[in-house]
Amino acid sequence: MKEFQVIKLKEGIFERNNIEAQKLRERLRVEKTLFINLMGSPGAGKTTLLSGTIDAINDEMKIAVMEADIDSDVDAAAISKTGVDVIQLHTGGMCHLDAEMTRQGIDGLGAKGADIVFLENVGNLVCPAEFDTGAAKNVMLLSVPEGDDKPLKYPLMFRISDALIISKTDALPVFDFDLDACIRRARKLNPDIKIFPVSAKAGEGMDAWLDWLRYEAAVFSRV
Amino acid sequence: MKEFQVIKLKEGIFERNNIEAQKLRERLRVEKTLFINLMGSPGAGKTTLLSGTIDAINDEMKIAVMEADIDSDVDAAAISKTGVDVIQLHTGGMCHLDAEMTRQGIDGLGAKGADIVFLENVGNLVCPAEFDTGAAKNVMLLSVPEGDDKPLKYPLMFRISDALIISKTDALPVFDFDLDACIRRARKLNPDIKIFPVSAKAGEGMDAWLDWLRYEAAVFSRV
Repeated sequence: MKEFQVIKLKEGIFERNNIEAQKLRERLRVEKTLFINLMGSPGAGKTTLLSGTIDAINDEMKIAVMEADIDSDVDAAAISKTGVDVIQLHTGGMCHLDAEMTRQGIDGLGAKGADIVFLENVGNLVCPAEFDTGAAKNVMLLSVPEGDDKPLKYPLMFRISDALIISKTDALPVFDFDLDACIRRARKLNPDIKIFPVSAKAGEGMDAWLDWLRYEAAVFSRV
Repeated sequence: MKEFQVIKLKEGIFERNNIEAQKLRERLRVEKTLFINLMGSPGAGKTTLLSGTIDAINDEMKIAVMEADIDSDVDAAAISKTGVDVIQLHTGGMCHLDAEMTRQGIDGLGAKGADIVFLENVGNLVCPAEFDTGAAKNVMLLSVPEGDDKPLKYPLMFRISDALIISKTDALPVFDFDLDACIRRARKLNPDIKIFPVSAKAGEGMDAWLDWLRYEAAVFSRV
């Protein structure tokens, strides 16, 4: 009985959030800004991937970054080294960003004119999957040390993601991670998901991911 | 204004939860069952640690396990191989267990007479830290591949934990993880936290963790 009440509250929150998310998505479509929501577990390598991505395409297009964290500035400090505009969003204990928090971030960032805005969401495979941020594309990272069973355990995250980056592939020799099984499990949940095995450390697999990103940005700029 | 409303709802939930948690904690004290809430990121190694722990102490005391997951049975299946009583709790999309869900689990498990009941919480460093499950001891895992900066980014989890297991230490040579810095950061948040670097794979560091567990169970059995 008690959980039922909680769930009803959550549904109300989801409903209001979906309306806000749709508004933000339509606004960014008009502004021709591709908004990408990057999600994954704590330590999956989101910041490292983002730094590498920015370094690779920063001279081709205008990029801006929103870093969401409970209350630290570690990731924003790391990204600021790349030279792009970055804003740190503190969720104040919340395990996700909602669309209204995201809108505040985009307004605070002054992202008008940016080709791509990345949101690095709170490290978490549950809550961020439930809250539409208004992003045009959801991208999730799953790192090799986390294990190939994660699609079985956090299915919603895999279902709502447009792309899956399997990160830290340089660690494949030291972990018992079945890449084929992981891809099969992810595709079973989401047949259309794009999958990019990547080692940001070794620089492997970045090209396919960057090509997808360039393609999506180009499509968006013509909307 | 909108976030403020959400936070007010959350506070109401926290308040009711704290009352339920305290009730459960008092009941388990009377029943002399040590209830340990095991938390950590997805893939931090909670199930592996738990299997190894059970194998080591199963002949010394009666152990039972609650496995919490969004909607899979992978971990309960793994733990059931150890031969102890195990129950799978499905949170239905929730990123944590609250005290009422936990009580349902303990009743479902029929844990009366158990010396230790372990709860393997949902893989997450945010929500489980916010919801008191009624556990006597909170234990968190941080795995080496997640990085030594996690205390800076998920401080509440480190603050509310009685013990921190730094897992997958066998991976220290291949990851840029500063063990001393991590311990210093954790202690800054929580000076009393017990810290156990462990490799369940290599079997290293398990003894110190098991000794702590035996000590806590002994203290509890005399309450």
